[in-house]
Amino acid sequence: MNLEIVTIGDELLIGQVVDTNSAWMGRKLNEAGFEVSRINSIRDTEEEILNILSEASDRADVVLLTGGLGPTKDDITKETLCKYFNTELVFNQEVFENVKSLIKRYVSNINKLNRSQAMVPANCTVISNPVGTAPIMWFEHEGTVFVSMPGVPSEMKYAMEFNIIPKLVEKFNIGSIVHKTVLVQGIPEAVLAEMLEDFEGGIASHISLAYLPAPGQIRLRFTGRGESKADLEAEITTLVEQLKPIIGNNILALEDVSITKIIAELFLNKELTLSSAESCTGGNIAHMITSLPGSSAYFKGSVVAYHNQVKQHILGVSDDDLANYGAVSQPVVEQMARGARKALDSDYAVATSGIAGPDGGTEEKPVGTVWISVSGPDRTISEKFQFGTIRERNIIRASEMALVMLKKMIENK
Amino acid sequence: MNLEIVTIGDELLIGQVVDTNSAWMGRKLNEAGFEVSRINSIRDTEEEILNILSEASDRADVVLLTGGLGPTKDDITKETLCKYFNTELVFNQEVFENVKSLIKRYVSNINKLNRSQAMVPANCTVISNPVGTAPIMWFEHEGTVFVSMPGVPSEMKYAMEFNIIPKLVEKFNIGSIVHKTVLVQGIPEAVLAEMLEDFEGGIASHISLAYLPAPGQIRLRFTGRGESKADLEAEITTLVEQLKPIIGNNILALEDVSITKIIAELFLNKELTLSSAESCTGGNIAHMITSLPGSSAYFKGSVVAYHNQVKQHILGVSDDDLANYGAVSQPVVEQMARGARKALDSDYAVATSGIAGPDGGTEEKPVGTVWISVSGPDRTISEKFQFGTIRERNIIRASEMALVMLKKMIENK
Repeated sequence: MNLEIVTIGDELLIGQVVDTNSAWMGRKLNEAGFEVSRINSIRDTEEEILNILSEASDRADVVLLTGGLGPTKDDITKETLCKYFNTELVFNQEVFENVKSLIKRYVSNINKLNRSQAMVPANCTVISNPVGTAPIMWFEHEGTVFVSMPGVPSEMKYAMEFNIIPKLVEKFNIGSIVHKTVLVQGIPEAVLAEMLEDFEGGIASHISLAYLPAPGQIRLRFTGRGESKADLEAEITTLVEQLKPIIGNNILALEDVSITKIIAELFLNKELTLSSAESCTGGNIAHMITSLPGSSAYFKGSVVAYHNQVKQHILGVSDDDLANYGAVSQPVVEQMARGARKALDSDYAVATSGIAGPDGGTEEKPVGTVWISVSGPDRTISEKFQFGTIRERNIIRASEMALVMLKKMIENK
Repeated sequence: MNLEIVTIGDELLIGQVVDTNSAWMGRKLNEAGFEVSRINSIRDTEEEILNILSEASDRADVVLLTGGLGPTKDDITKETLCKYFNTELVFNQEVFENVKSLIKRYVSNINKLNRSQAMVPANCTVISNPVGTAPIMWFEHEGTVFVSMPGVPSEMKYAMEFNIIPKLVEKFNIGSIVHKTVLVQGIPEAVLAEMLEDFEGGIASHISLAYLPAPGQIRLRFTGRGESKADLEAEITTLVEQLKPIIGNNILALEDVSITKIIAELFLNKELTLSSAESCTGGNIAHMITSLPGSSAYFKGSVVAYHNQVKQHILGVSDDDLANYGAVSQPVVEQMARGARKALDSDYAVATSGIAGPDGGTEEKPVGTVWISVSGPDRTISEKFQFGTIRERNIIRASEMALVMLKKMIENK
């Protein structure tokens, strides 16, 4: 069966908003055994919406639409759905009660725009939306299922997870799909591909292998399709076992997990505490760690020491070393890591000092030069990296590498 | 004229990677006067690629493809382009020299996968790619321009900015498009829409107005199309002037700019310095500020005080107040802000303390309760907010609101 996603809104096409909904939907649908065959982003016009409804229903069994359901004038999706299905908008009491109950928390009276949100095409089944005011509508028309959802991520996610995916699973009887990702770190893509050439030759045709590069990492993703989920899982597990001796300790994890999640589990299991001292990463390490719920159990905090004074006064970095070696140097980054352990009273600390760019580079220390240190109860280590020229990427790579070094220190202990 | 984007890769459809390329391309193409009429994300199969090439060229004058050009087996775009154009791959010396010069920085010998990167369809014009090894290919076929680019954002961006957009501008003689965005803060969408009903009725039909909601903000975007760019700009400027008295001081900015950028300009112009003390935002404020190049000129650093000890020892928060009022309280957040100003020696400091969720809420202080304080040379202010239940969103809203409060304090000084 084929399933297509249609995201509606001019803001997507002029690039004011990045379409993150589709990726989330793709992931959740896949977990449930559905494959998205195409994602279409279109403008907010009647003509474009009518065209895509007709095209997508020719190709697909299910068409999931997001966007274009707000209370304001630029949202014309509902009217266009009526035209396509040759029906009209009718007032829906259930939707209206929902709008009223949600809106009364914020404003005292229901305005007429809110009332218009309760109008839905006569041929739809309304799916409840407890987290937002827009109606969610399920249509079945000439053998195709159409679902129209709001573009607000929290509303779309709730509807997909609790209503739409369960309804799709009930309606369609589909085969199994199994994904497995191996995270590899520190090997360029072309080199890895050559290392795996023989291995890849031996993979059965119903299992595919894809290389997904990210800053400093490559995700190797196996995808197997077939009848039995258990058989697919067993086959892929065997392949992963074959992969281990080839890649060795450049395997970071046997799942598609962030390094932040790996660190969280390590620290929680071992009941350790962590802090950071960040210069070039500017708080990004702390932000990554604290983005996960429950991080307060092991993360003490961070000193973002952007200015040298902060390195001296709070982290206790030596004035002489700053003067003699500069902030981007081995002695300074090690003192930052030790200083964070002490000032923030943690078992381990990571520290970064580098030139994120685009300015500030010298011949000796070009943009992308980053010193990273990890300090623990027994020892302090440090390493110099030469990343690229793009600030955003350098910040990400330095943050992730600091956590990779931290993981290795704890595991080798 | 119509222009479509096609992004290729299974990783997009199973949601392992978010397609950020399309939004960037849409933005840059719009600035140059081109409108993207559709974005298509498709799987990495010959059938899907052949279908989209044929469909998109029926609808569009220009088809921009990204992805599927890496050296590994899952990338089949080049072979499929040959099939579609009924031609064959030929070795291109220029591309090979580029691959060699880039690869030699990392690995000593050119492997055969790298050599295969130098093969291109015989009918293409090669566009140079100084930042990556994949070839960039320009085709003209039966009245349609096709451009195939790598999916790696840095390579795509370089090619678009320096080669592809200039070539498109040269080839097509297009009308003008003008966008103007007004950032509004603190008014719900439906309420704002009602406030603007009469205003919207008076807008000429060649100018459209869209509402783009983001956490805590709404971007109002005017889009005008016509012959003369100067006339469109003048018309939209007049509309914005009419908008000002209606929305008043809920207008945050008269451009589509981040609050971080607004703060950067304020602090640079006034030669002030800033620091932060972050509990629930966990380093995100520092990360937002230091994501901008040049931030070291005004940002001293941050103390991410996740643990209460850090609030006490580094920021000097009173033990009694922590015990009596709790960490999420007015006295504590104000002491954090004052403490950061002192410990980090800055003119201004912002501080946050709240319950980001999903756990940790109580009846008195539910998830989403956040205290924010701003401290300056003359005074310290604070305010309590009740955000929602989603951790990620609460961190963003609290970070942005802290900077909005900071902006207001400095401007009202």
